[in-house]
Amino acid sequence: MDAQQTFFEALKGRTDPEEKREAITRSFYRDVFGDLVKETGARYLLQGTNYTDIEETLAGIKRQHNILEQLGIDPEEVYGYKVVEPLIQLRKSSIRRVGKALGLPEEIHNRPPFPGPALAARVIGETTPERVQTVRSATKIVEEELSDSGAFQYLAILHEDRVVGIRNGKRDFGLQIEVRCWESKDAKVGSPTRLPYDVLDRLAERITTEVPGVVSVTYNITKKPPSTIEAV
Amino acid sequence: MDAQQTFFEALKGRTDPEEKREAITRSFYRDVFGDLVKETGARYLLQGTNYTDIEETLAGIKRQHNILEQLGIDPEEVYGYKVVEPLIQLRKSSIRRVGKALGLPEEIHNRPPFPGPALAARVIGETTPERVQTVRSATKIVEEELSDSGAFQYLAILHEDRVVGIRNGKRDFGLQIEVRCWESKDAKVGSPTRLPYDVLDRLAERITTEVPGVVSVTYNITKKPPSTIEAV
Repeated sequence: MDAQQTFFEALKGRTDPEEKREAITRSFYRDVFGDLVKETGARYLLQGTNYTDIEETLAGIKRQHNILEQLGIDPEEVYGYKVVEPLIQLRKSSIRRVGKALGLPEEIHNRPPFPGPALAARVIGETTPERVQTVRSATKIVEEELSDSGAFQYLAILHEDRVVGIRNGKRDFGLQIEVRCWESKDAKVGSPTRLPYDVLDRLAERITTEVPGVVSVTYNITKKPPSTIEAV
Repeated sequence: MDAQQTFFEALKGRTDPEEKREAITRSFYRDVFGDLVKETGARYLLQGTNYTDIEETLAGIKRQHNILEQLGIDPEEVYGYKVVEPLIQLRKSSIRRVGKALGLPEEIHNRPPFPGPALAARVIGETTPERVQTVRSATKIVEEELSDSGAFQYLAILHEDRVVGIRNGKRDFGLQIEVRCWESKDAKVGSPTRLPYDVLDRLAERITTEVPGVVSVTYNITKKPPSTIEAV
């Protein structure tokens, strides 16, 4: 389904991270899946909510888009269908073992996590189609360069702050991309991967050359906690 | 002279980097030095403007606070005193050689550069006393940890963007500090220093522990160009 317009309309003008997450949850369950349910007569939505999602949402750290009943939302009453969550008692490392035991291929059971709110969680400030395109281009480069790193997760974040750069000897008040690459087992705690500087050089070189408007690239050096895996 | 109040009043509500730099220039030459000149009857201000300052200001990259005549400002007419600039034809590396030849001690002729607009150039967004205090605490840690690195320059930048962190299991929507450490001879071009990861770990650990409100630390990995040494 191409649901871009629904999401971008819901996100328009919103800059608060939790408001953005709430707008995505509502669009996802009510508008996008709601319409599909009506069309198809489906009665269940099967999803991979895990224990860390519940824990972080209830602790008020980040509202994960897939948390409903624990926040007092009855999906059948509000959206018209039931939600089935078979993995709800497991953390990421156990889910990988279940996937492997079920015979799923390596690239499925061992793939890097990707946020529920997708690239909207990787844009600080307002999420516009243009800004998502910027972070998508940077993400593609990060995934190409780091897929062999063996890291738990790697991502690009588009900052809202602008910084001064130089292009062809002239001022370019441009964008900054932050790269994060994590060592972790279950996303509950994590450390930045000690990537070789040649790799960091190549990331900065490619992102500032291939992604229009970007003049600065940083690398996260903070552990979780006190950081979190995603920035917002 | 304690001129904090003059500068903070001039900076209040300003977020555009060039407007901030212009406000600092005006406060510096007109208000702070202007008063001093009237009190003392001084006729000259001796300052260390160098060739890169002129070049970057005229190219429109960053307005350096010490550029006056090249922007059509006659200091005698506008501020009431003449400005003497004996180093104006030299870049940083030559200035260091002059300093050494004159017999100045190593810690003077070889000290890391520090921006004219001081820590105001290290705060993205509005420069308030509280935000300067945050970046000052981070700067102190960066200087303590990197003074033995042999790098050309090292600095901390306070971002305006906020990111999600965790403290004691609870959400902390906090601040981000960016650390930059440069290899350069004259600040015209530069590369990030390849600091050992143990040093980056210690920087992140100390800054997120000792500086109130900071939950995230990044390290710049972009060369100049397309980056610049300072962020704004």
